[in-house]
Amino acid sequence: MLLDEERIDDLLWRNLKIIQNPHWFCFSLDAVLLAGFATLRSDDLVVDLGTGTGVIPLLLSARARNKKTNIIGLEIKPEVADMAQRSVALNKLSDQIFIKVGDIKTANTILGKGKFDLVVSNPPYALVGSGKISPSSVKAAARTEIFCTLEDVVREASLLLNSEGRFAVVHRPQRLVDIFYLMRNYRLEPKRVRFVHPVPEKEPNLILVEGIKNGKKDVQILPPLYVYEKTGIHSKEMKAIFAGKFLSEEW
Amino acid sequence: MLLDEERIDDLLWRNLKIIQNPHWFCFSLDAVLLAGFATLRSDDLVVDLGTGTGVIPLLLSARARNKKTNIIGLEIKPEVADMAQRSVALNKLSDQIFIKVGDIKTANTILGKGKFDLVVSNPPYALVGSGKISPSSVKAAARTEIFCTLEDVVREASLLLNSEGRFAVVHRPQRLVDIFYLMRNYRLEPKRVRFVHPVPEKEPNLILVEGIKNGKKDVQILPPLYVYEKTGIHSKEMKAIFAGKFLSEEW
Repeated sequence: MLLDEERIDDLLWRNLKIIQNPHWFCFSLDAVLLAGFATLRSDDLVVDLGTGTGVIPLLLSARARNKKTNIIGLEIKPEVADMAQRSVALNKLSDQIFIKVGDIKTANTILGKGKFDLVVSNPPYALVGSGKISPSSVKAAARTEIFCTLEDVVREASLLLNSEGRFAVVHRPQRLVDIFYLMRNYRLEPKRVRFVHPVPEKEPNLILVEGIKNGKKDVQILPPLYVYEKTGIHSKEMKAIFAGKFLSEEW
Repeated sequence: MLLDEERIDDLLWRNLKIIQNPHWFCFSLDAVLLAGFATLRSDDLVVDLGTGTGVIPLLLSARARNKKTNIIGLEIKPEVADMAQRSVALNKLSDQIFIKVGDIKTANTILGKGKFDLVVSNPPYALVGSGKISPSSVKAAARTEIFCTLEDVVREASLLLNSEGRFAVVHRPQRLVDIFYLMRNYRLEPKRVRFVHPVPEKEPNLILVEGIKNGKKDVQILPPLYVYEKTGIHSKEMKAIFAGKFLSEEW
């Protein structure tokens, strides 16, 4: 089950387990927040673009509660996809989560056009040339837009989705204008936005954005999410998230 | 000095006075916040698009502290422009603030292209057809996009500004995608954004956006501004604003 350097971690929700290689990367709060933020309906056919460890499909499967919600995780690195596939098997979710090796840039030719209800993505945040490239190519692929740009993600999401399908993404606040601009250009109208602040007085360090394909122009900026109330004390909402509450309720 | 139904109100900052006709409209917190938010440098040549009572030019003149900052207030309604002009005279600021009657839609032909350092605007928020039209035409012009759309404001701001000139606008959060999209299309790259929340747990009800003509793509989401800490108690920052502190400090 486990290869060299891999370990099994608890996902804390519904006894889910996840295989991770800490020399590559481990799942982050960003992925957890995105999995809770996206609007999910039973029967949804879902794609996670750049699935990595498969953490988002695992969490979405727990939110879905029934087996009719099927989730495809697309991952370009075969060795990472293999690890995600073993996590799916470990959790006995092979009838609900399907890991595929493939390139985000051609996702619509791999998976088909206009078939999906929800596309989610926790893409690499850093622009190429905007920082030092991580020496491990797996790490670099997860962090830097080497294999795909934000525009690739938005374009493919739009092609994959049916009309009124949803696209949910987590990113850095500095890219908010890029995200809105690209989403509107690819007819994924931004509808819900949430800013994640480390504490109430600080700038946000994450953004969650959900758009609807061919949606009407009208965006809702949700109340901020504060990770800490003050230094060292998690906010009530974060405590609820860590207690798995986001899996059962809209927030 | 005063016409029927008009009154003189205190602006609270630096003994400024303002003439208002409460049957038309009175200046709002929105205008005050915008006047404090915009980046202002001494020697700036400034335009306020749709100046109304002239409240923004009056506050900017107080922030500027010297007479080298000149501000033009453009107003389409002659009777409103006349009232604003009398407020300027009342405050002995006729050598610094110039009220002109004119249409925002052709502002660049009235005032000239590429000459200005800062354009500010507190435009009408409501789309035509999105609510009932106010029976008074002055009120309707201030509230609804009858005389000019958001695109008119952004386009004219871009034409008025010199390269690296700034455009600062206050609006409703629902229009954030429109604002970003239009600003980027007219080469006014959004650089600073602030959300104004009634209380920390609620959605914002105002946004402040500043862009730079031909600026680099990189937006900063500033810490939120909370009007109240909790019901009935203004936040520390709002108390400072009401004490005129925003006139002397960057915030």
